[in-house]
Amino acid sequence: VKLPTQRLVLVADLLSVSVFAVQGAALAIQANLDLLGVMVLSFVAALGGGILRDLLIGASPPQALKTWWYPALAIAVGAATFVLHRWVLQIPPPLLIGLDAVGLGLAAVAGTEKTLAYGLHPFIAVLIGGLNGVGGGTIRDVLLDHVPTVLRTDIYATAAMTGAVVLIAAQACGLPARWAAGLGFTACVLLRLVSVWQHWSLPHIQAA
Amino acid sequence: VKLPTQRLVLVADLLSVSVFAVQGAALAIQANLDLLGVMVLSFVAALGGGILRDLLIGASPPQALKTWWYPALAIAVGAATFVLHRWVLQIPPPLLIGLDAVGLGLAAVAGTEKTLAYGLHPFIAVLIGGLNGVGGGTIRDVLLDHVPTVLRTDIYATAAMTGAVVLIAAQACGLPARWAAGLGFTACVLLRLVSVWQHWSLPHIQAA
Amino acid sequence: VKLPTQRLVLVADLLSVSVFAVQGAALAIQANLDLLGVMVLSFVAALGGGILRDLLIGASPPQALKTWWYPALAIAVGAATFVLHRWVLQIPPPLLIGLDAVGLGLAAVAGTEKTLAYGLHPFIAVLIGGLNGVGGGTIRDVLLDHVPTVLRTDIYATAAMTGAVVLIAAQACGLPARWAAGLGFTACVLLRLVSVWQHWSLPHIQAA
Repeated sequence: VKLPTQRLVLVADLLSVSVFAVQGAALAIQANLDLLGVMVLSFVAALGGGILRDLLIGASPPQALKTWWYPALAIAVGAATFVLHRWVLQIPPPLLIGLDAVGLGLAAVAGTEKTLAYGLHPFIAVLIGGLNGVGGGTIRDVLLDHVPTVLRTDIYATAAMTGAVVLIAAQACGLPARWAAGLGFTACVLLRLVSVWQHWSLPHIQAA
Repeated sequence: VKLPTQRLVLVADLLSVSVFAVQGAALAIQANLDLLGVMVLSFVAALGGGILRDLLIGASPPQALKTWWYPALAIAVGAATFVLHRWVLQIPPPLLIGLDAVGLGLAAVAGTEKTLAYGLHPFIAVLIGGLNGVGGGTIRDVLLDHVPTVLRTDIYATAAMTGAVVLIAAQACGLPARWAAGLGFTACVLLRLVSVWQHWSLPHIQAA
Repeated sequence: VKLPTQRLVLVADLLSVSVFAVQGAALAIQANLDLLGVMVLSFVAALGGGILRDLLIGASPPQALKTWWYPALAIAVGAATFVLHRWVLQIPPPLLIGLDAVGLGLAAVAGTEKTLAYGLHPFIAVLIGGLNGVGGGTIRDVLLDHVPTVLRTDIYATAAMTGAVVLIAAQACGLPARWAAGLGFTACVLLRLVSVWQHWSLPHIQAA
């Protein structure tokens, strides 16, 4: 699967693996895991979504295990977060939220494109695009013995799937692949950031 | 894999996806998940067992992701349960238990037959038949941060595996495929319903 | 994948499946699961690591489901632990720890060798070797609604990955396969036992 603007994507990809890994490590440190647990949570948070995607669409072995450097990056970021945790805790939250939105958008686009490339239905591609964005965080939260955050609050998976829908719609309108990908990415990031800024959330039913 | 009495099976299949989806959605609403969480739990409860089955026997991509309408049905049922939850809570429990037993029986038969069709040992087919029946509920309960209900109480997975054993025994006795499937299905549903009615359960060890 | 000293490995393999199954069953009994839950936890604890390994490297169907007797052994050991639980509770802990270390070492070696045989990078083989050792216990703990023990304490996954590194280094030095496997196995078992004896653990960060 060839993605548009290869070098830009690579940089964004490394960035998004790093952001998800830092978040996984920070939550693992809060949960009092040891160094190994912190590195495992970094790995899972950064690469779990893509691994689930590849297992489900039948891409075997998963992309994340075909080279050594994606896992190595995720684990090294986890170890660095462990060592430098006082410093990491001081990263301004808006910066983390912004980088996380970029990571989410990239994962959504990559998941949607790869699912389409494997010949599955666009509706399935939207679901897998969303899973690619939130699957790592979901496994992370299950290992930390929480109900996954993504199921409870916020416009998060919704932003990922919106990006997937925009990408597919743009392709259907005849836009070139890189433009469609760019539009889907932008829609995901914008919706995510605006929803954080405006405190949007999906409806809940109040327990009686 | 061609199943007997195709149209009947299709109707039963749609019914069982719907029942598992309603149950997943109802538990998600009780756990105070948002609309997205409710739809995810419907999807997972309805289709998770079949997806686990297909990953384990090597049927890739899973049946549930080959068409758009199984996921769409599960998700739509989840959304409808969210909107109509007051009404759904009033469905008489015996009706839900009956429909759930039908869904369990169908999943057990489908899992057993598909595993045999992929050339695995009948003993493995019994295990996968049981997993097909209870896997969705297990993932559902893990995401809701419970010990899976199926591991604690009731004759449930046991009923699914009994149906699988009856199906395989009937085939070994030379019965035609559709009769064997019908017998396995009937054994599962009957055992499930009688065990609920009679409050049967498997032995526990009392904590000291 | 042909392993060295076939008969010895078979004996060790049956032993390690049994040990992991006994541990899974004992934890399930403590968590008040019923007989079915106990057998499921035995199965998962004994075979889950190998199944995860095979799903990730693309060995389909997983080795543990290709024959009936690995699952049957795990389940039978679970049932026996249930029936004989008073007796099982009296097994001296040092014996269990020793057998568990042997099981860990064997799983680490098997996971590393199989991953290399499937053409993946040695770094990935170390990760999968570790996962082969601890994956079953991880799924077991998730089903029991705990944070996996392996992420919190002890030199456990670390011992498995150390064994994997030793195996790969020995192969790179030109040692014959069975010597390399033996060295990796020995390194894992020794590190595990010494770390239990000396109460070694990985660093934690104290919650503020």
